Amino acid sequence: MKDEHGTINSGMKNSSEPRREPFIPQWIIEKKRDGLPLAAEEIEFFIAGYTAGTIPDYQMAAMAMAVYLRDMTPAETAALTAAMLHSGDVVDTSALAAPRVDKHSTGGIGDKTSLILAPLLAACGVVVPMISGRGLGITGGTLDKLEAIPGYRTRLTESEFLDALREAGCAIIGQTDRLAPADRKLYALRDVTATVPSIPLITASILCKKLAEGIDHLVLDVKFGRGAFMKTRADARRLAESLVRVGRDMGKRVTALLTAMNQPLGRSAGNALEVIECCEALRGRGPDDLMELTLELSAAALVSCGRAPDTAAARAQLAAALDSGAAWEKFRAMVTRQGGDVAALDDYARLPVAARRAPLTAPRAGFVAEVNAEKIGRAVILLGGGRQRTDDRVDPAVGVADLVKVGAPVARGQTLAVIHAADETRLAAAKAMLADAFVFSAEPPAPEPLIAERILP
Amino acid sequence: MKDEHGTINSGMKNSSEPRREPFIPQWIIEKKRDGLPLAAEEIEFFIAGYTAGTIPDYQMAAMAMAVYLRDMTPAETAALTAAMLHSGDVVDTSALAAPRVDKHSTGGIGDKTSLILAPLLAACGVVVPMISGRGLGITGGTLDKLEAIPGYRTRLTESEFLDALREAGCAIIGQTDRLAPADRKLYALRDVTATVPSIPLITASILCKKLAEGIDHLVLDVKFGRGAFMKTRADARRLAESLVRVGRDMGKRVTALLTAMNQPLGRSAGNALEVIECCEALRGRGPDDLMELTLELSAAALVSCGRAPDTAAARAQLAAALDSGAAWEKFRAMVTRQGGDVAALDDYARLPVAARRAPLTAPRAGFVAEVNAEKIGRAVILLGGGRQRTDDRVDPAVGVADLVKVGAPVARGQTLAVIHAADETRLAAAKAMLADAFVFSAEPPAPEPLIAERILP
Repeated sequence: MKDEHGTINSGMKNSSEPRREPFIPQWIIEKKRDGLPLAAEEIEFFIAGYTAGTIPDYQMAAMAMAVYLRDMTPAETAALTAAMLHSGDVVDTSALAAPRVDKHSTGGIGDKTSLILAPLLAACGVVVPMISGRGLGITGGTLDKLEAIPGYRTRLTESEFLDALREAGCAIIGQTDRLAPADRKLYALRDVTATVPSIPLITASILCKKLAEGIDHLVLDVKFGRGAFMKTRADARRLAESLVRVGRDMGKRVTALLTAMNQPLGRSAGNALEVIECCEALRGRGPDDLMELTLELSAAALVSCGRAPDTAAARAQLAAALDSGAAWEKFRAMVTRQGGDVAALDDYARLPVAARRAPLTAPRAGFVAEVNAEKIGRAVILLGGGRQRTDDRVDPAVGVADLVKVGAPVARGQTLAVIHAADETRLAAAKAMLADAFVFSAEPPAPEPLIAERILP
Repeated sequence: MKDEHGTINSGMKNSSEPRREPFIPQWIIEKKRDGLPLAAEEIEFFIAGYTAGTIPDYQMAAMAMAVYLRDMTPAETAALTAAMLHSGDVVDTSALAAPRVDKHSTGGIGDKTSLILAPLLAACGVVVPMISGRGLGITGGTLDKLEAIPGYRTRLTESEFLDALREAGCAIIGQTDRLAPADRKLYALRDVTATVPSIPLITASILCKKLAEGIDHLVLDVKFGRGAFMKTRADARRLAESLVRVGRDMGKRVTALLTAMNQPLGRSAGNALEVIECCEALRGRGPDDLMELTLELSAAALVSCGRAPDTAAARAQLAAALDSGAAWEKFRAMVTRQGGDVAALDDYARLPVAARRAPLTAPRAGFVAEVNAEKIGRAVILLGGGRQRTDDRVDPAVGVADLVKVGAPVARGQTLAVIHAADETRLAAAKAMLADAFVFSAEPPAPEPLIAERILP
């Protein structure tokens, strides 16, 4: 059908005259529409015009749909990333002597690795200038979690950010208006024009924001499964390969891990509940899956920037930084530096607490065969702890804690999770959503590896 | 590549939840993006929202690109046509007893058939409520030609239009704001988003405007070749089949002729020059190709509405209407009814006249093998007789007349055409453009049929 189309449309030009002027927006759209690769200058012109407002939303919308359906080469995607990156400022981290490293995840349920990884890497002597986002839909957001700590400021000026990095080795702040404005504009447009799930557009969107941090090394956690944006491992691999390849074309070392996101990561989902889980993790009491993922991502970062010869050596360094309390101290330093109530990290009662909590119990005995991450994420939204629209407010106290893990044997009536809710109505709604989130089996389920593949720079 | 894509993208939904609400614009775009057929109600919702302004240009632009690249079924195209037609008024011609018939051409160089066909069909007892357009690019426009007649008004109210039809049997007016407003809006958007040459979008655009005239029968002249929008006969056939099929689905009899547009039609291109050619034609002195095309299109219209059993019988009726002067009288009645200076139809000096005229002569002897219609069209634009942008003004006096036809033997120095220009600068520019518009051969070229195919309702 496409070939047929190609023929129809190619025969139906308005004119057979050669194109002399390359920078007419509709001619650039037409080129992409016809499946031809765009020149870097054409992409630059288009993104600069879109950022400035001389190319209107409707031309960008047609272009985004053409890119969605016709794809982009790695060279085009790199040019798009560069154009979006240079639509705004790049943080100047050159005064910081240590390697600048960051991690990005495509988003999951209960994923609080950033809060552990940033201080852990800082404790190993690298700098982590992390600019993070808020949750949307079933996916949580790092900023929302940190803001559960009373007083924590996610808006710093560039000089405050650099000071925090110099002192704590890590800082986690929100997006500013001056970083990658083209991405902010384009993302909002893609959301309403059905052009979100495009590999080149996702690649450029992720990389332009991360490279605006002034980093040299990036580790990506590309998730697949029921609780992830990408449902299959093949899709996740394709995106990961695009990110690593385009990063390389732009002179950055990007490592990607493909990781399973079928059950929530760790034992809690909900902002304050996840902060508590991170404090426990940094004190050496984290759940296995959360620790394993955090350590593997952190190890990849240390290997990438030459701080360790291999993963094993990197993991030894990371274990030492955890055991010595160095990582925990870095986390406290970061929270302090960003205005957070550091006492709340010792006394969890100082964090927001939900009025109601109630256990969800096993209807039968058996092995936990499935904990549906998507349903847990939806339950958190119903509780008011997540966002359906970007302007929704989140309740930091609520969520689901003490989650049972896949593979665990349970007795009838045993607690599968504890729901933290603001009131009975929301508690009931969450309970109804969670009713069939747990699946049991007579035999232990076959273990699924958390880290499926790694794609090196 | 597309299959691969289909897989990537289908795996990357934001959520696996079933869609319960069908009328969210981005979900409708997504459905078309993924190559699924849209329901009539979805198309209706989209076009109504776009017309009302609740669906913004950027969502329509993404949709248009998705339609361009994914196509539409005939049922979808019919729903689109109906939605665009009902975005505005439909002229109520039910008080007119005779069949209502119109003709539409996809546009060519020197194509003045409408001016002859409308009075000719009126003389045969049918009603021709023609709403026509202006020229854009190399293609001329019927309204521009008629406005070369001093005083001719192309803007009539609906009741003036109906009065003119009752009295003269035919009227040719311009588009009003109340007819198919969705098309006017969408056409302007397609022009700047590289989504013009899409068969379903062209089909809906043509049919919604023509059906808004309140007609029952439509004859289409779908042109192909160097001087046409569609360069190949296969593309023209595909569009013609779509138009006939969708017309039938909407309960209208649509007949399409596929006609060659390599050389200009007739002997002139330019507004006043073409009016003169039409007057001559209605007096029985028209060039062969122009007469042949006009008579075949008119015959198809008479056969469609049952006024003649077959083409031969229809052509006999038409010849009688020409010979008797009845068609000529209908033309004069129409011009009079629409405020035009009818004396100018007898005394061509009352029409706009160009200050300069100069012959273009044959550089060698031989047979005319080619007269490049596109170059003639571009020469008319250079002379100021056409438009490059919709807001350009046209000079009605200028153009190219006395054009030699393909197949004619010429001596060295013989006149190939006469250029009518406003000044020496424009004359020189037109001459330069026309320098290689004529190709000669030692042997007579193989004759090319003007009418290649007919597609019946």
